[in-house]
Amino acid sequence: MAPASSQRSIRVAIQGEKGSFSEAAARRLLAPDRLELLCCSSFTDVFTALRRGAAETAVIPIENTLAGSVAANYDLLRREAVTIVAETNLRIRHQLITPPGVSLRAIRRVLSHPVALDQCRRFLRRHPRWEAVPFYDTAGSVQYIVEQGLRDAAAIAGVPAAKAYGARVVAANIEDNPRNFTRFLRLLPAAAAAAAANPSQSRRQTHKVSVVFATRNQPGALCRCLNVFALRGIDLSRIESRPTPGRPWEYSFYLDFFGALSQPTVRQALSDLAAVSDELKILGSYPAVRKEPPRGRARLGH
Amino acid sequence: MAPASSQRSIRVAIQGEKGSFSEAAARRLLAPDRLELLCCSSFTDVFTALRRGAAETAVIPIENTLAGSVAANYDLLRREAVTIVAETNLRIRHQLITPPGVSLRAIRRVLSHPVALDQCRRFLRRHPRWEAVPFYDTAGSVQYIVEQGLRDAAAIAGVPAAKAYGARVVAANIEDNPRNFTRFLRLLPAAAAAAAANPSQSRRQTHKVSVVFATRNQPGALCRCLNVFALRGIDLSRIESRPTPGRPWEYSFYLDFFGALSQPTVRQALSDLAAVSDELKILGSYPAVRKEPPRGRARLGH
Repeated sequence: MAPASSQRSIRVAIQGEKGSFSEAAARRLLAPDRLELLCCSSFTDVFTALRRGAAETAVIPIENTLAGSVAANYDLLRREAVTIVAETNLRIRHQLITPPGVSLRAIRRVLSHPVALDQCRRFLRRHPRWEAVPFYDTAGSVQYIVEQGLRDAAAIAGVPAAKAYGARVVAANIEDNPRNFTRFLRLLPAAAAAAAANPSQSRRQTHKVSVVFATRNQPGALCRCLNVFALRGIDLSRIESRPTPGRPWEYSFYLDFFGALSQPTVRQALSDLAAVSDELKILGSYPAVRKEPPRGRARLGH
Repeated sequence: MAPASSQRSIRVAIQGEKGSFSEAAARRLLAPDRLELLCCSSFTDVFTALRRGAAETAVIPIENTLAGSVAANYDLLRREAVTIVAETNLRIRHQLITPPGVSLRAIRRVLSHPVALDQCRRFLRRHPRWEAVPFYDTAGSVQYIVEQGLRDAAAIAGVPAAKAYGARVVAANIEDNPRNFTRFLRLLPAAAAAAAANPSQSRRQTHKVSVVFATRNQPGALCRCLNVFALRGIDLSRIESRPTPGRPWEYSFYLDFFGALSQPTVRQALSDLAAVSDELKILGSYPAVRKEPPRGRARLGH
């Protein structure tokens, strides 16, 4: 008999339904046969499930190469006691999906997540009589039109959603721009991540660190924070600003940079950052999907 | 008889319907009695109306102190030939609104823009049997429930929307967080703004300049761009990053800073910025609503 641990399934919280892009990302980040999905209707519910132990881990989208940041998740990462332990980039391809037996000609309305509707604008414009109806989830919109037995409706979602609900793809890859990727993060409750931490991260694998901080109310504050990394030749891969809730016109900054917490240079940079910023929180240190850009080709520089 | 120019009305494009927060912002930014609204269903349509001359000016939301940036408008500002000529900050208060004769007890669903639904989450949680239904516009959701004669539906919008459609406020100021403001911008077609430009901007009035640029693919690039302002003691009020469409994992930066294009220091800073960045575009120079923070209290620093 195999040890119990290898047979145990992992309960993962996602926003959206079975067949969603979040499920596809979860399958890539975790062993597919051990996955037990906890489908949540909002990102707040995903973080609550993690906090209350209803799920052991969670997989959330954080940015899309066309739509930009998933703002709600940036706010939740700062607020909740979670740690980022992995990332993946998923190519997003949208399909027009109908319940079995419903033809392209019968369609009068198209349901999907507002971001998906927006990313298929050119395709939808060719069918001016179709009404675009926003729905809370791509895969959920397929489930809805199938379960309600709608004869005049289509949904926009990925191929797995069509399969999950026995629906048909009637127009394939209808997205305006093919360079459409979403970056997903895998989260653990902070306590679980600390217990599982492996300080001897491989030197061959490129790592990334994510942090959030507020700048001090003084001239040059943001520049001083970024210089902490520039001085040490640490490459930033992303900077994002978000309003600080309840403090109108004040902002927090989220940084992703190449490096691992096990590196002394990185620890020194973060110690300096703590000295020149407010409310610094380390969100995680994890293997990077993409390699660090070669010297002289960093995308953001520092 | 008064000169014709003072009697002529101004045609202004907004996203949303009569009674929307955009209309309230337009009334504040323009003479109220000369306003002729062109209501558009999307921000893309607003910019198209301006480009084709269907409207002389446009008023758009750009950021909210709780929800953050209106991403679509940042992308459109970069792409379209428009100039920002004014800004205003509007306090956002949400009302629960029903058609006349519909009581609080009859409500089964609540329609509104997803951001408004999200900002009233605590209030909605107290009524777990109500279904939250996303709609493209706050004021539009009031118009819809009144025109359809719905007897089980409420909408969330501002007081002007209730007045515009003869509906009733059944619960007032239901937003979770009272520190809820939206910043709106007034736009002109770039050619019209250039023709109307007044280079002798008052020295007493604080001004702001908005720009967008891409960083070069080299280490230290973002720091070098921000240093252009730090060196000259120019205070930044906002930095926002957005993905560059079609170039996955590359970003553009939007900056707002205190100063006017008529100031030699500002012109020199922008000339230096052009030398160290790519695709610099000046989005506008306009009177600032808030005063520049006192020395030592800049919100972002440089």
